[in-house]
Amino acid sequence: MTDLHVYDTTLRDGAQQEGLNLSVSDKLAIAAHLDELGVGYIEGGWPGANPKDTEFFTRAQQELRLQNATLAAFGATRRAGGNAADDPLVRALVHSGASVVTLVAKSHVRHVESALRTTRKENLAMVRDTVSFLAGEGRRVFLDAEHFFDGYATDPAYALEVVRTAVEAGAEVVALCDTNGGMLPSQVGDVVGEVLEATAARLGIHCHNDTGCAVANSMAAVAAGATHVQGTINGYGERTGNADLLTVVSNLQIKQGLSLVEPPRLKEATRIAHAISEITNVPPYSRQPYVGASAFAHKAGLHASAIKVDPDLYQHTDPQAVGNDMRMLVSDMAGRASIELKGRELGYDLAGDDETLSRVLRKVKDLELRGYTFDAADASFELLLRREVEGDVHDFFRVESWRVITDARGEEEALSEATVKVVAGGERVVATGEGNGPVNALDHALRRALSPAYPELDKLELIDFRVRILDAAHGTDAVTRVLIETSDGETSWETVGVAGNIVEASWQALVEGVTYGLVRAGVPVR
Amino acid sequence: MTDLHVYDTTLRDGAQQEGLNLSVSDKLAIAAHLDELGVGYIEGGWPGANPKDTEFFTRAQQELRLQNATLAAFGATRRAGGNAADDPLVRALVHSGASVVTLVAKSHVRHVESALRTTRKENLAMVRDTVSFLAGEGRRVFLDAEHFFDGYATDPAYALEVVRTAVEAGAEVVALCDTNGGMLPSQVGDVVGEVLEATAARLGIHCHNDTGCAVANSMAAVAAGATHVQGTINGYGERTGNADLLTVVSNLQIKQGLSLVEPPRLKEATRIAHAISEITNVPPYSRQPYVGASAFAHKAGLHASAIKVDPDLYQHTDPQAVGNDMRMLVSDMAGRASIELKGRELGYDLAGDDETLSRVLRKVKDLELRGYTFDAADASFELLLRREVEGDVHDFFRVESWRVITDARGEEEALSEATVKVVAGGERVVATGEGNGPVNALDHALRRALSPAYPELDKLELIDFRVRILDAAHGTDAVTRVLIETSDGETSWETVGVAGNIVEASWQALVEGVTYGLVRAGVPVR
Repeated sequence: MTDLHVYDTTLRDGAQQEGLNLSVSDKLAIAAHLDELGVGYIEGGWPGANPKDTEFFTRAQQELRLQNATLAAFGATRRAGGNAADDPLVRALVHSGASVVTLVAKSHVRHVESALRTTRKENLAMVRDTVSFLAGEGRRVFLDAEHFFDGYATDPAYALEVVRTAVEAGAEVVALCDTNGGMLPSQVGDVVGEVLEATAARLGIHCHNDTGCAVANSMAAVAAGATHVQGTINGYGERTGNADLLTVVSNLQIKQGLSLVEPPRLKEATRIAHAISEITNVPPYSRQPYVGASAFAHKAGLHASAIKVDPDLYQHTDPQAVGNDMRMLVSDMAGRASIELKGRELGYDLAGDDETLSRVLRKVKDLELRGYTFDAADASFELLLRREVEGDVHDFFRVESWRVITDARGEEEALSEATVKVVAGGERVVATGEGNGPVNALDHALRRALSPAYPELDKLELIDFRVRILDAAHGTDAVTRVLIETSDGETSWETVGVAGNIVEASWQALVEGVTYGLVRAGVPVR
Repeated sequence: MTDLHVYDTTLRDGAQQEGLNLSVSDKLAIAAHLDELGVGYIEGGWPGANPKDTEFFTRAQQELRLQNATLAAFGATRRAGGNAADDPLVRALVHSGASVVTLVAKSHVRHVESALRTTRKENLAMVRDTVSFLAGEGRRVFLDAEHFFDGYATDPAYALEVVRTAVEAGAEVVALCDTNGGMLPSQVGDVVGEVLEATAARLGIHCHNDTGCAVANSMAAVAAGATHVQGTINGYGERTGNADLLTVVSNLQIKQGLSLVEPPRLKEATRIAHAISEITNVPPYSRQPYVGASAFAHKAGLHASAIKVDPDLYQHTDPQAVGNDMRMLVSDMAGRASIELKGRELGYDLAGDDETLSRVLRKVKDLELRGYTFDAADASFELLLRREVEGDVHDFFRVESWRVITDARGEEEALSEATVKVVAGGERVVATGEGNGPVNALDHALRRALSPAYPELDKLELIDFRVRILDAAHGTDAVTRVLIETSDGETSWETVGVAGNIVEASWQALVEGVTYGLVRAGVPVR
């Protein structure tokens, strides 16, 4: 592996994201994932300033068995007018047990004077004292030069003096921070080059995404000679977030041939990104580069015919390199080629079967014109395709009627109650279900009605429900599209329903979701 | 304004995004927003290839009154071995009525041979014929050179020949497309510079975000001399999406001093980005640069006191420039100020009334935490403010209970029937209403129940209904937010309801919509 540091600050700067709140256990679980990914450094938090972070470092020493990564404790330079050895926050960094300490320091004259309210000279002394004290305690010291790029634009001599002071006092790395995130790649590249010429520092880069350029800024810094890259998983962070470390590492390694993490570890990137978003409870961003659910999904019919010939013509890299997959989406923009490809995924060879391909395509286009959408409802598409290819083999049950009542008295919460009448397994069953909404109630009633014939359905769960009113100009007379996600505990699938009545659309999607669950489990019609 | 084209392809390439499906009405509504933002060109779709897009261009001519933007129709070069004048898809471009036609053409030898399955020579003839035919029909022709950067890397001479052929045949712009999205900024800048040196073309740039660099790549192209920038609102698009046009325009205009759209129009960027995401029903991305809800949000802590002294030290640009706001989680003075301002609009002078301002602010924050949104529901906010300032003066009626039944037999369409019991004008009224959905039925029943006391309500009409499931991880147990737009024939207003039960949330919004209609009409409580 190269000597370029991959430095993750998900647990510290990433946790500044609005709405993100990590427990100590969350942080430990994320650190284990980061280690598995192969990052070099994990910034765990600010011991001493935050009791949760103090506890994190204590428990990390006991519970984490890191294979690749080194833990770094984050902190600030000593107080103005004080002494590093006596500063309780500096001492907490030593007591954290972390072998690397990353100190944030001011490098912008206006921040020194307005925010820190001290002199330029004292700020330099704070850097010098704190770095040399920690180095004397046997710690490797990295310096985060806060607001460096804005500071360099305002007073380059002073900004450089902060870098030199840190290096002379024993700092191993000085990371230049675009704290406000306003830089563009050409500016970052120029400044990194100038600082390298003017000082003896090993430089790092720390970017925020306020101009949408955090990844490009990080790459520009590396191209100019920085050898330490900071970022966060999934780009978490304050405001617009930090540089997405997975994108930066994938670009540097796959596009530029640098060797940052072992290739088999990079193949875990997609899984690890999603595992971490399960812990943070921030929904994964489907359009995230490399690891997003849509990152290698193709919808256009124009492309699908050519993808059949040569997938490399239509993807910028092999999705396997980051553990992701190419997916074909079916939509009204698609053609026969994408249906053929989707059929192949399901085990049908439709290559020569022009009649079936045309029939399915007509059906898809007709349904999408009426408001259905199959790129977001792959299970409904699979059922459609199976019905067209195999005939009506999947009529597991017949619906006689359904009804749902929602009512409320005065200010009380509304309740919904559903009754479903079906014929399944040769028996007519009438079942009722309650719920805090009509769809919930129908779901309960339907699965109760089918349970005697299909006990396999007991483990299914409705996990997501989305509603879209189409052609909104007509208000509630408009057509409603409902997407439902159903899970069997291991995997999940999406189905779609469309109707003038929102409850009817939901009912369609529910019936499809249950039917797909039975097909998927290989249950025979009873 | 500068001569740099701002070319929006939200309606065409943006619509390729997974899960995004726009009706013709959606497209018309988005086009109106784009025009208001001040983009130069709106690519509306592919007439002829897609019936919805054909309809879009027909209705656009009748219904859209564009102030700034020119509509562009997208299409492909004629078929291999054919004739442009006889090609039905090329003719559909002419019939669309759009004054600009953007033609996609192959510029990568492997795509010519493997995907198009024709010769290099015939591909050049297809470009030449189609461009000159359309130019001869009086259209301005732009060429999208698909896979240009990959093609240039494979066979630069051929890629350049495609550009030259298009220009010689009359194309006004050749947009170089990073179709697979795998480029990095330095590559894009180099290639754009080389193409400018080797041809007489006016160049455009079209980027995808697969390396997380779409914005930086677009900027690099402009720095190298491109004068036409393509992108989509909110970065919608296939896979990882297209370059986010709002970020690119904001960077070029605010950071680099170029003049692309009139500054007062850029101040609408945040509002327009959110309005468009209401139409697409893709949840807004809070970390989106410039216009995201978190883009200028600061967590309390280290920076809080310093931000009060000098906000410019902690933000990369003035959020007002894009119509966004700085938000701090402590002492939100901006919140009080806007409540004071809104009060003034309604005739309340709350300038000195700290107690009322704080109370309203607390109430708003508490409700927004529970899922309400007042920027999209101005009528609900006005009712809230009136209640807090004037007390309970607008209780026009009291709801005793309501109930709605939805049922269906077999394959029949579902019907909904509602019963509402209210006390209004001193009388207890029980009324029923039918509808093709539960909300429709409740709306009819409620207005029928209130009609004896408030005949003014007869002219109200429910004209829009939108549903968003919040906290989707809990499926139908999640909280549902309903926005309803009510019209009195002259103007319209939006109200909001939030509840676990979708029907209850709709009921709340209906009651608010009717109440606001009575307040607005100056009707006394009877």
